[in-house]
Amino acid sequence: MAHQRSPYESPDVSGLTIAVLGGTGDQGRGLARRFALAGHEVIIGSRNAERAASAAAELDVASVRGLANAEAAEQGDLVIVAVPWEGHRELLESLREPLAGKIVVDCVNPLGFDKRGAFALPVEEGSAAEQASAVLPDSRVVAAFHHVSAVVLLDPQVDEVDLDVLVLGDDREATDTVRALAARISGVRGIYGGRLRNAHQVEALTANIISINRRYKSHAGLRVTDV
Amino acid sequence: MAHQRSPYESPDVSGLTIAVLGGTGDQGRGLARRFALAGHEVIIGSRNAERAASAAAELDVASVRGLANAEAAEQGDLVIVAVPWEGHRELLESLREPLAGKIVVDCVNPLGFDKRGAFALPVEEGSAAEQASAVLPDSRVVAAFHHVSAVVLLDPQVDEVDLDVLVLGDDREATDTVRALAARISGVRGIYGGRLRNAHQVEALTANIISINRRYKSHAGLRVTDV
Repeated sequence: MAHQRSPYESPDVSGLTIAVLGGTGDQGRGLARRFALAGHEVIIGSRNAERAASAAAELDVASVRGLANAEAAEQGDLVIVAVPWEGHRELLESLREPLAGKIVVDCVNPLGFDKRGAFALPVEEGSAAEQASAVLPDSRVVAAFHHVSAVVLLDPQVDEVDLDVLVLGDDREATDTVRALAARISGVRGIYGGRLRNAHQVEALTANIISINRRYKSHAGLRVTDV
Repeated sequence: MAHQRSPYESPDVSGLTIAVLGGTGDQGRGLARRFALAGHEVIIGSRNAERAASAAAELDVASVRGLANAEAAEQGDLVIVAVPWEGHRELLESLREPLAGKIVVDCVNPLGFDKRGAFALPVEEGSAAEQASAVLPDSRVVAAFHHVSAVVLLDPQVDEVDLDVLVLGDDREATDTVRALAARISGVRGIYGGRLRNAHQVEALTANIISINRRYKSHAGLRVTDV
């Protein structure tokens, strides 16, 4: 049986190459930027390799490059899924082989929008993360980074990002790794947040954070107290 | 059109008598204790008036008394629903008249438990709060106080409760009142958290907080940043 760390200890993840699928979107670019600033090699993936390359160039951090999603999935040691909810399943189905054996971090929020704001969409598998886990049986799926504001991640004025990232999954070593990865973003802590079966409400809570941001004109995040 | 406060302003709620239905449970007693300490008249409601009276006596705060749920609902200016999920609908159906016109604060978390921990139960109406709203069409239903630890509320060593209470509802004046009520607990802020249609994930997130508490041996709460 593997040694289990204290939840306050973390593995060294500094050498990991991070691929961000759907990395041309705001959240993907924001995460790519922060991991590159922390010293990681980062690959932005996109359906279109040229768009990926120009998004990487625009970030203006030397260690970010752009590739088509399949190549990004192959070259990343750890792969973040930041694609729109529409097309989530299809993309992952097409990448089953390059993603096999890897930690795949799903940060997709299945949300709808109408005049009254954002709301959670129903997901057949329960959550985007559980859908990823069903589609990628040979990958180690973790859910994280749902509540980080893309605006904050991309803001060069923001040195410290003031929130905790909830990290969910059924594979202890994989969630420990992703907790450590979250903490590579200055100001952020990665906090274990439960099993994948409890991912739906974490994804859906993004709708509440959007409501808070509207009401308070803020870029709200969550911190976990007594941890 | 009514004047709308800034989300940082709050009405004066200091004179409100607070009834807590299901107030003999841990969460109900904890809330009753904190509101009494803040100077409110508090009524613990229970199916059994004697049990309510003895729970009130045990709290040892002069301004708490115990009554049967129906009398508690009648006498409270604002009524908190802290009953177990089983029986939630039936209790509220039986109290439609005394609760008419009042702010009813639902803090019920529909959760199941198994060997792997807590998980969210499906709710026909979407959430306990939406069920309350459906059953009580003449009340002003607000959802709040889901994540407060009963252990912390009841702990005489804890002077400052270190968390924010997310307050959800479709009635602006009612959510403003409940935000102010939450802030009567020392250390707590009441933060608007969205409409009732987004209550499910806030209720369900209690399962994640239970997972956090197990892993970190904590009494975790949430704070909202940038607000």
